[in-house]
Amino acid sequence: MFSKETYIQRRQVLKQKVGSGVILLIGNEESGMNYRDNVYPFRQDSTFLYYFGLDVASIHAVIDIDNDQEVIFGNELTIDDIVWTGPKESLVDKAAKVGVTQVKPLSAIDGYLKDISGKKQNIHFLPPYRGEHALLLQEWLHISPAEAAQRASITLIKAIVSMRSYKTAEEIAEIEKAVDTSVDMHLEFMRTTRPGITERDLAGRLQSIAIGQGGDISYPVIMTVNGEILHTHARDLPMRDGQMSLCDAGAETAMRYCGDLTRTIPTGQRFTTLQREMYEIVLTAQKSAIEACKPGVLFKDVHTLASTKLLEGLKSLGVITGDPVEAVANDVHTLFFQCGLGHMMGLDVHDMENLGEQYVGYSEDLKKGTTFGWKSLRLGRALEPGFVVTVEPGLYLIPTLIDRWKAENKLSEFVNYNKLEMLRDFTGIRIEDDIVITEDGNRVLGKYLPKEVSEVEALR
Amino acid sequence: MFSKETYIQRRQVLKQKVGSGVILLIGNEESGMNYRDNVYPFRQDSTFLYYFGLDVASIHAVIDIDNDQEVIFGNELTIDDIVWTGPKESLVDKAAKVGVTQVKPLSAIDGYLKDISGKKQNIHFLPPYRGEHALLLQEWLHISPAEAAQRASITLIKAIVSMRSYKTAEEIAEIEKAVDTSVDMHLEFMRTTRPGITERDLAGRLQSIAIGQGGDISYPVIMTVNGEILHTHARDLPMRDGQMSLCDAGAETAMRYCGDLTRTIPTGQRFTTLQREMYEIVLTAQKSAIEACKPGVLFKDVHTLASTKLLEGLKSLGVITGDPVEAVANDVHTLFFQCGLGHMMGLDVHDMENLGEQYVGYSEDLKKGTTFGWKSLRLGRALEPGFVVTVEPGLYLIPTLIDRWKAENKLSEFVNYNKLEMLRDFTGIRIEDDIVITEDGNRVLGKYLPKEVSEVEALR
Repeated sequence: MFSKETYIQRRQVLKQKVGSGVILLIGNEESGMNYRDNVYPFRQDSTFLYYFGLDVASIHAVIDIDNDQEVIFGNELTIDDIVWTGPKESLVDKAAKVGVTQVKPLSAIDGYLKDISGKKQNIHFLPPYRGEHALLLQEWLHISPAEAAQRASITLIKAIVSMRSYKTAEEIAEIEKAVDTSVDMHLEFMRTTRPGITERDLAGRLQSIAIGQGGDISYPVIMTVNGEILHTHARDLPMRDGQMSLCDAGAETAMRYCGDLTRTIPTGQRFTTLQREMYEIVLTAQKSAIEACKPGVLFKDVHTLASTKLLEGLKSLGVITGDPVEAVANDVHTLFFQCGLGHMMGLDVHDMENLGEQYVGYSEDLKKGTTFGWKSLRLGRALEPGFVVTVEPGLYLIPTLIDRWKAENKLSEFVNYNKLEMLRDFTGIRIEDDIVITEDGNRVLGKYLPKEVSEVEALR
Repeated sequence: MFSKETYIQRRQVLKQKVGSGVILLIGNEESGMNYRDNVYPFRQDSTFLYYFGLDVASIHAVIDIDNDQEVIFGNELTIDDIVWTGPKESLVDKAAKVGVTQVKPLSAIDGYLKDISGKKQNIHFLPPYRGEHALLLQEWLHISPAEAAQRASITLIKAIVSMRSYKTAEEIAEIEKAVDTSVDMHLEFMRTTRPGITERDLAGRLQSIAIGQGGDISYPVIMTVNGEILHTHARDLPMRDGQMSLCDAGAETAMRYCGDLTRTIPTGQRFTTLQREMYEIVLTAQKSAIEACKPGVLFKDVHTLASTKLLEGLKSLGVITGDPVEAVANDVHTLFFQCGLGHMMGLDVHDMENLGEQYVGYSEDLKKGTTFGWKSLRLGRALEPGFVVTVEPGLYLIPTLIDRWKAENKLSEFVNYNKLEMLRDFTGIRIEDDIVITEDGNRVLGKYLPKEVSEVEALR
């Protein structure tokens, strides 16, 4: 937890930005897997953590801007509870640590909010992303689950984005801790991957490192010999020599700040010639992209630059013909690089994704694209000092997609479909680091994680 | 997955037992942790798995008994989805494997159920335990979240309990696989625990074994040097020599059958004399309880037997005076053994807990107790062949509880509070195995996991 002053200050700024009315921040609840009491690891809502710092289930916060009140609603443990849980710090004491002096029982929130509604004060809330959020909004504010997302407060969303986007020095230190643990996970991946081991086995080992260092994984580990499948998880599949293994994994610290790294390595000891050539293409694109990240530069343009570098590389293999810049202008890169170059990262691995990508990654003047490829770019806006973002270009050879394009002879002035056949079963490569934008450029966060071919092979 | 015939047969029996109307089984959904797309590991509802076998998110099933129809509602992947997920078996093909030929899109379920309501057919559903269940019942059947639990079908609950309680040979084989993995987790615990290592570190290692063997943990690992705290999880606490370490951990197989084992070991190499004496008391109680489990015996009576053995042991230490049987009749044991001796286990670690303990663990003639200690006994009914249950007595020295009893001088004819002082900071011990009730007794499931003092110390 940061200092009391940090949270008080954040709420002060939030009140000024929102201006008037009442802010309702719904905390998360324990979530039963197969029955109520067999729960998933508790994950507090990130915005709640940012303003109230309390990583406790079933508490909610109200900030009455008009009357300058801040209240946390939640129940203290009873003496009967303590028999089962052992002595615990009271909610009142916890709240004091984040500068909140008013704590009321959970049962009081319904009446409190109805009272506010009666006074015609505007209640600002965020779009729900869990079933419980929708149920509580219905119970307290009589807003139907179908309407809740549309009735969320744009003013509140914009105010939060305008604060959480700029990471302070203490936040960057915490993110760097998460990245360091993520590096440890990837070093284990690089050292222990070998033919015969299963994807799940490796994924489990990586998670144990994240847990052992005091937190957990920040998102489900992607561990796969089919890197071209972007939405996949580790399977009971023994890896084979000659394949590549892609690992996209990150840790979250005890304070819930995230890391997010990807490496792709040979499953055996060495890359094949083709794998090395393709790897170097992605690495060049990734380094060029990182180099280009600085204040004032549109991340959308960095995505374009990385895409151009990828096509330049593929041109050297004969798969692409013509001018790479022109090819990217025609979206040729989306055949190989279907997703975005990166995203904001902080208390969420896709930071603030629940608030809406249009508000987080774009601006009034820059709307998110709607076409294939571009619609998957979560971040397009101009970079600013304090932004923490991922840079993660890749080459993904998706047979289904290749077949579709080839059947349509799509963009054949740029794509040599005969040459492309040799890559049809190549699978995929991604290389990802986390950077913070500085006053005059950027800095890669965390301990160095090898990514040069020679460095990777030296660890195998 | 079991054979198609298994699922067809189960549904056939269910239809006969429920008799008439329509059965709605709501499947589970992906559950976002901090935003919609950053999901917890998916866990299908166990009853859905039992009758429909499909471990897939966002599908639901309807069995129209009156018209002998079985329909699975869910969406097929689109060609666009396949770009991201890779080729996958269609829902139609999956459904065929469990003997269901009718698959309809998710959007059709609302109309389908409204049609049924219009025909005045009775719709049987289960009590919701996740927010999404309540939202769907509201959307489809106009049942408010507040009412949903009360309007659940007792007929359906009883029919399901009367089937899932009796494990078939193929289910027992799968449970035994889960127990074997759980044994591997505990062997790792016994071999690697040492002063200086943190609870979290060990918990992470155990989880990685469960994941590596194809499943996951069946419940959050309890790994603690404070075994007396019954509701606790692993902390960033380095273990110290002289302490005991309690590990309650189990695996769930890929098919989602569960294991659930507990061992308590010295954190260093040897138990202290007092620890050994207390350990032997719990071990004697556990062995006596296992020996007593056979068809026709009330599990409630086995709980009483184990409680008596615990008090007999404490009498030998001078902490308890008088007749142990009489002491148990006066609930003296609840000062040391506040929870239940065990519970059903199967597709859920507390099997069918979402259906209600009164239906699962008790009967028309045997109601669950309401007093301290007894209200925590999840299972009381007579054992029958095919039941899989845990046997897990313990001694828990809870300072808060001791202080309360001592202040009241409660049951001082049985408790020597002066002697008890020496145990005030003793912490806790639990020993737990999983058994299946056979025709003439029971069998402990899985590979043997050491529990004798000499065996445990040999592994340290």
